[in-house]
Amino acid sequence: MSKISLVTGAYGFIGRHVARQMAADGWRVIGLGHGAWTKEEWEAWGVDEWHTAEITLENLITYAVEPDVIVHCAGSGSVGFSMTHPYQDFQRTVATTLAVLEYARLHAPKAKISYPSSAGVYGVADKLPIAESDPLSPASPYGVHKRMSEDLCKSYAKNFGITVAMTRLFSVYGVGLRKQLLWDASQKINNDENEFFGSGEEIRDWLHVEDAASLLIAAAEHASAKCPVVNGGSGVGVTVKEVLTDLFACFERSDAPKFSGIVRSGDPLGYQADIAQASSWGWQPAKDRKQSIAEYVTWIKGGAL
Amino acid sequence: MSKISLVTGAYGFIGRHVARQMAADGWRVIGLGHGAWTKEEWEAWGVDEWHTAEITLENLITYAVEPDVIVHCAGSGSVGFSMTHPYQDFQRTVATTLAVLEYARLHAPKAKISYPSSAGVYGVADKLPIAESDPLSPASPYGVHKRMSEDLCKSYAKNFGITVAMTRLFSVYGVGLRKQLLWDASQKINNDENEFFGSGEEIRDWLHVEDAASLLIAAAEHASAKCPVVNGGSGVGVTVKEVLTDLFACFERSDAPKFSGIVRSGDPLGYQADIAQASSWGWQPAKDRKQSIAEYVTWIKGGAL
Repeated sequence: MSKISLVTGAYGFIGRHVARQMAADGWRVIGLGHGAWTKEEWEAWGVDEWHTAEITLENLITYAVEPDVIVHCAGSGSVGFSMTHPYQDFQRTVATTLAVLEYARLHAPKAKISYPSSAGVYGVADKLPIAESDPLSPASPYGVHKRMSEDLCKSYAKNFGITVAMTRLFSVYGVGLRKQLLWDASQKINNDENEFFGSGEEIRDWLHVEDAASLLIAAAEHASAKCPVVNGGSGVGVTVKEVLTDLFACFERSDAPKFSGIVRSGDPLGYQADIAQASSWGWQPAKDRKQSIAEYVTWIKGGAL
Repeated sequence: MSKISLVTGAYGFIGRHVARQMAADGWRVIGLGHGAWTKEEWEAWGVDEWHTAEITLENLITYAVEPDVIVHCAGSGSVGFSMTHPYQDFQRTVATTLAVLEYARLHAPKAKISYPSSAGVYGVADKLPIAESDPLSPASPYGVHKRMSEDLCKSYAKNFGITVAMTRLFSVYGVGLRKQLLWDASQKINNDENEFFGSGEEIRDWLHVEDAASLLIAAAEHASAKCPVVNGGSGVGVTVKEVLTDLFACFERSDAPKFSGIVRSGDPLGYQADIAQASSWGWQPAKDRKQSIAEYVTWIKGGAL
């Protein structure tokens, strides 16, 4: 009999890739969350059973059938949203994580939980690359709520023996992502614009969504009551200017991106992951960045905008 | 016209003393929370208007009439409860704090919020006395949830300009408290028992509930978007053995307390507050400990058990 994986937020950008990879590995995937997709669509993404429902303790009891693994992908994914809707951002990120942990404590104490946290918990870094043991000083409500979710994971692991692993994801990207830098820039390019916020020298660590999914699955295997945490990045720091220059090239633009020099408040100058910890699990990112940007542009040109 | 103070959890041990002191100072006090008391009783405690209701955003919008100050005394007050009911402990402590902060953001942005946190956020201390800048490593769900509430206060202050001050209360005691060391010990003495957990050498910092209330009120005056935090203690470390010896004397017992030597897990060996910060506000504890223990015993002997 197949092992069962519960993927919350399986309709989301990361969740659907987790579902697809686990299904390909022989897991029976139950999906729970919000998302307007058809049976055909969710099955194509590897979901055996889909339930449109809030991630609450009650719904988890109703829909989750003793999962062996829970990958809790549901949650807020936007710093901007957290600034305009902090209360809702808290509900999406912290309240759902509490529900998953309490469900595990009461009804699935042996389930291995993989929690996608965010590099946002580090806030402004003192040095690059950032290691897991570096201080946490999240700035935005988004980052604060992610850290609160981490605190809950650690508390349930320590006090109740719940087995968890947490992955701090850096800049996850790939075909299908309709927000953040590559999306916003593609829209600008489409509108014949080439001006961007910031200096262009901001460093980001780009992780393809398929690599993010494979790391979240590896993390489930390493879940324990010690609640290990790993950085989820490529380990390579790339400036915004470099990424946008690649993007412009894929769009066959002859001009180059220009930068306002204005740094947005709360927008840290740099993120680059030390991935020694994740590498020690035998995980490595597999996707090539330049090729993946080309795939993204192909998707955009195909009518995604 | 009187200024308005909203006291959540005004029925509780600390909340009622906050209500009484503010009423005596001329405030109009609105109380919100759970508690089975009569109009006569709540008026005797200085509450002008009492609403039996959960501390939710909706109820705050319904019942709170543009308060000048909010003292958010509602919340869990038991490490033991948090171990058996972590989900409910979270709701009482973290969810209510979020509701208060979001209410302030949306409807009372000028309200000064005083938040009673706990020395439990420090976890096991490296040194005594403990200063506010010392590291936080809460152990129990209770302590973790208190720290999460602090994180929310800081986030709302930093990101939305909400004015808050946080007070980390140490061992608050006084007539009326039907739990914790003095209560448990009084029950034992009443049952002619004299054996206690621990070594007796555990250090606690005892703060009378009237002093705790006066500090929470002083904190409201110092609330700002910088979200200051102060320790709420007497500044004096006293061993459990010493306090129990005083208690035994008040009960006119000829025997002395005995200790099992067994240290309960998660029970830190020592707490003593550095109160320089609170003192810099002009606040000082006023109640004498030995006399207060005598008052407690008089209350117990009067039939409180």
